Amino acid sequence: MAVYTEVSFEDLQALLKNYDIGKPTSFKGIAEGVENSNFLLTTERGGFILTLYEKRVHAEDLPFFLGLLEHLAAKGIACPVPVRRQDGAQSMTVNGRPAALLTFLDGLSLRRPEAAHCAQVGAVLAHMHDAGRDFALKRPNALGPQGWPPLVEATRARAETVQEGLANLIAEALAVTHAEWPENLPAGIIHADLFPDNVLFMNGTISGMIDFYFACNDAFAYDLAVMLNAWCFENDGSYNLTKGRALLSGYSKARALSDAEMAALPVLARGAALRFLLTRLYDWLNPDPSALVRPKDPREFAKRLRFHMRVKRAAEYGI
Amino acid sequence: MAVYTEVSFEDLQALLKNYDIGKPTSFKGIAEGVENSNFLLTTERGGFILTLYEKRVHAEDLPFFLGLLEHLAAKGIACPVPVRRQDGAQSMTVNGRPAALLTFLDGLSLRRPEAAHCAQVGAVLAHMHDAGRDFALKRPNALGPQGWPPLVEATRARAETVQEGLANLIAEALAVTHAEWPENLPAGIIHADLFPDNVLFMNGTISGMIDFYFACNDAFAYDLAVMLNAWCFENDGSYNLTKGRALLSGYSKARALSDAEMAALPVLARGAALRFLLTRLYDWLNPDPSALVRPKDPREFAKRLRFHMRVKRAAEYGI
Repeated sequence: MAVYTEVSFEDLQALLKNYDIGKPTSFKGIAEGVENSNFLLTTERGGFILTLYEKRVHAEDLPFFLGLLEHLAAKGIACPVPVRRQDGAQSMTVNGRPAALLTFLDGLSLRRPEAAHCAQVGAVLAHMHDAGRDFALKRPNALGPQGWPPLVEATRARAETVQEGLANLIAEALAVTHAEWPENLPAGIIHADLFPDNVLFMNGTISGMIDFYFACNDAFAYDLAVMLNAWCFENDGSYNLTKGRALLSGYSKARALSDAEMAALPVLARGAALRFLLTRLYDWLNPDPSALVRPKDPREFAKRLRFHMRVKRAAEYGI
Repeated sequence: MAVYTEVSFEDLQALLKNYDIGKPTSFKGIAEGVENSNFLLTTERGGFILTLYEKRVHAEDLPFFLGLLEHLAAKGIACPVPVRRQDGAQSMTVNGRPAALLTFLDGLSLRRPEAAHCAQVGAVLAHMHDAGRDFALKRPNALGPQGWPPLVEATRARAETVQEGLANLIAEALAVTHAEWPENLPAGIIHADLFPDNVLFMNGTISGMIDFYFACNDAFAYDLAVMLNAWCFENDGSYNLTKGRALLSGYSKARALSDAEMAALPVLARGAALRFLLTRLYDWLNPDPSALVRPKDPREFAKRLRFHMRVKRAAEYGI
């Protein structure tokens, strides 16, 4: 969400020698993305994003992330596409960091999406799930159920300093979610972080999806559960059933949900809320002094988790 | 140099209702500028910068800064121009911050400018000095000689923790600089912060100057002394006489320097080095926990100040 590693004009000139994209007309560090350094580059041929991958994204995962974008784009999904160098390489090293140049997507992300946006993005998620089916590479979900206990452990002692009752809420949610976690749901490539920041719109219509750096192989319905959390709650923490219904119906019109997937929605939604609660809580309790972003408030997701803990049937989400 | 105050799509939509610049096609927070929040906005009509002024720039100074840009642009200086709202206003309030929308300038800033760039930027500085002569508003230089003693005071106790001998260097430089500071040099509007970051080039030719938020009324030759510090030293701290000569000659071809101005260059260069040393030292010793940028190393300017303290005649700068 900031520039951690600087790229000078001279660095840029050197790296552009390997690409056939024309002369640069502007180059700005941008405040966007996960913990990477991102630059918006404009050349005579259009807009590009130069990303230097910092600690959270590992070089060995780049063939998965960049290959996935290329694969999805070839199937008609609007996402950034890595620009290959003249020697065919998809990535490079810039100032000691793994780096890639991607096409820039026009569009703006919404802060307060409405039901019509939720319906569109549901459909686009389903298309992405379909488009990813024959992608050859795999990547496990590091922030799935096996990833939670170490985060619970690391945050337990100080969870109560953030909110009274938080340690209990987490312990209880972990226990019931683990116990009920569904196996054998239809699975494939999921985005795993499709928050409103990561979807661009132009004049009310989706123009693209960005930030695939949590993408992995997991249950399709879990991706939808992430989106129920990310798109269908109001600022006051209340669940907006109209948005939930729009999201689920937009998705299922494009890819039908099985009975097992529908039945699993409540536990998947609990799991998704727990995942974001835990990572935010960890970052909140362990602020990185070198970070150039402020940690996000974990309590938002505590509220959503409490909501999901009370949900008994998928119908309550509007399906 | 980061985004301190967020601007959502919905905030943007609301503010664009007051402008006649078309529909937005992209909007990104950028890592640029002094301590303001900056966003790069693209619409059907071109590129713009939306700036929200944070603590360092005061609302009461905006008529000076924005009026100056409009004045300079009208005189042919390539700088951002505030876009007036349909009601004629040059600025507004966005999320509680004073804010302005400015035209975006194409071009890239250089990390390691060469002598030919120094000559160009010298000429452009002289043109800017001429263009500012009939600008009606005035603003004192808060970081001129009267501004240094409080910074010396505030940093003295811990200066030695940054570098051995630094407290003495500062005390000595303050004494001699104050004693010899020239009065009555030709003065007017100066940029006061024309570092390479603030000059854009396209294909080796200057395309614009940006970041006028330290602009003020002071001696023209002081602006040139800032540039001697900012453009003519190598990374190892050595003075590059070729670049100095190019800068001074580029400037004086466009606006002749008087004997008094030439004679004052050594003391002005000491003053400029002391000013950047002091503000960087202060920021280094008092890091703002809410800042999203890393403080710059003050020792670079200690090295330059030591160089200037040994200079006896302006000729040593290449004039």
